Amino acid sequence: MAGSNAPVGVFDSGVGGLTVAREIMRQLPEERIVYFGDTARLPYGTKSRNTVIRFSRQIVRFLMTKEVKAIVIACNTATAFALEEIQRELRIPVIGVIDAAARVAVSVTGNNRIGVVGTTATIGSGMYEKALKQYNEKVKVYGKACPLLVSLAEEGWLHDTITEEVVSRYLKDLRYKSIDTLILGCTHYPLLRSTFRKIAGEDVTLVNPAYEVAMELGELLKTRGLSCGRDVGGAGEKYEFFVSDAAEKFCEFANSILPFDIEQVKQINIEDFEAEGRDAFREG
Amino acid sequence: MAGSNAPVGVFDSGVGGLTVAREIMRQLPEERIVYFGDTARLPYGTKSRNTVIRFSRQIVRFLMTKEVKAIVIACNTATAFALEEIQRELRIPVIGVIDAAARVAVSVTGNNRIGVVGTTATIGSGMYEKALKQYNEKVKVYGKACPLLVSLAEEGWLHDTITEEVVSRYLKDLRYKSIDTLILGCTHYPLLRSTFRKIAGEDVTLVNPAYEVAMELGELLKTRGLSCGRDVGGAGEKYEFFVSDAAEKFCEFANSILPFDIEQVKQINIEDFEAEGRDAFREG
Repeated sequence: MAGSNAPVGVFDSGVGGLTVAREIMRQLPEERIVYFGDTARLPYGTKSRNTVIRFSRQIVRFLMTKEVKAIVIACNTATAFALEEIQRELRIPVIGVIDAAARVAVSVTGNNRIGVVGTTATIGSGMYEKALKQYNEKVKVYGKACPLLVSLAEEGWLHDTITEEVVSRYLKDLRYKSIDTLILGCTHYPLLRSTFRKIAGEDVTLVNPAYEVAMELGELLKTRGLSCGRDVGGAGEKYEFFVSDAAEKFCEFANSILPFDIEQVKQINIEDFEAEGRDAFREG
Repeated sequence: MAGSNAPVGVFDSGVGGLTVAREIMRQLPEERIVYFGDTARLPYGTKSRNTVIRFSRQIVRFLMTKEVKAIVIACNTATAFALEEIQRELRIPVIGVIDAAARVAVSVTGNNRIGVVGTTATIGSGMYEKALKQYNEKVKVYGKACPLLVSLAEEGWLHDTITEEVVSRYLKDLRYKSIDTLILGCTHYPLLRSTFRKIAGEDVTLVNPAYEVAMELGELLKTRGLSCGRDVGGAGEKYEFFVSDAAEKFCEFANSILPFDIEQVKQINIEDFEAEGRDAFREG
């Protein structure tokens, strides 16, 4: 079992999970992080449950070679599809981005009408609704898949009239539902926060799962006696970044959203980490 | 060696290549087709050369198990990165979507100023420029990456004010270059043809590589004595569709653009078709 000075594993389909890593760095500055972005196979949001589970298993297998003490699934789609499976298989704590956000959303809503925006896969999975109703079965949940927003965020059109128009169209239905709380259920969406704020209006509370999961991680590590006891120094020593493709492009994007410049991103062949004896999950 | 009644293999990162398959069905109605869409790993347009080559090799290996007589790479990114490698390795004819379109563009331009729109990977590869200059070294080529258009096409916003605005922004630079010919260098873009027509204006000739590569395939099969001698009947018998994920979603999209309804799409695990002894290509 990895000790308290071991790193936390964080993974996502690509760069979106960096908004989660950023929050962990901010809230838990002494923790080491091993980040993996599956850039060869992104996005996950359009893919099926079995495929996302298979990809997630390979990534977890890779992270375990780094002797991580806990894993954060920093991707809503992978959380929706693979969290429970991964939790069942591992002895170390594994948390996802959905549960903490659901708990907070239920605690801040005044009228019990909550909206959720995310990828087609996340919304289709119904996992936010399930999590929200677990905390308060009376809440009404309105989901809306927004497949274009990841591309817009990655294109860098963060403050842009076209992005505003797209968000406005996606939120149209939700506005008629009188929601007072909106969960940004995709790790790319915090990058579009100001656009969501503008279109949703001041009366709607935006819930950012990246912030909430970093809080949850801090509490969890504390409870389990796994909080890192000492700060090992600069970002170069504390944070390791791995991707399955296009390390340079990842670096560029990461440097635009992290508070420091990444010195090195290593590329690995994630398919080599296929879990044996799991063939039942390999076909849809 | 596969005989003339063998099928033609057609592959793409996902659904875009169906615009090519559709043209082959229209122009060469007697040919059988085995189509593969790599829906588990789409899109290719943001990925690196080595990764796209590795994925393409796996797909080719799968298609060879279907004893195809020829292969059409119905994806601009895969053509840009993997065509030459694949051609070197196979004895059957392999063609891509770039060359035929380049030849036609050079023959229709009046002022030798040609624009190319495509994915980040296709434009970044410079393969269209190379192909165009091979036919006429005097042409000036202006490339523009349009990463949002695949998502917009897949969202089904084909005739839409937002799509018009996005296309307009992408074409802005090209308009100042006085191009008279524009290559739609991504297999999704023919779905947005009317928007391109509207924004580019009537004076710009649009070149559709899907149409041109189907023409090239017909000529090639004829020259090699590989044209199918007899029509085997309905679409159900002639056409086979395979994907690496989400067969149902593929089916839905395919049925919206093909002139018949697909009865069956089979899902396979494409990673199982890893070519042995090619490890040199597995790391970036």
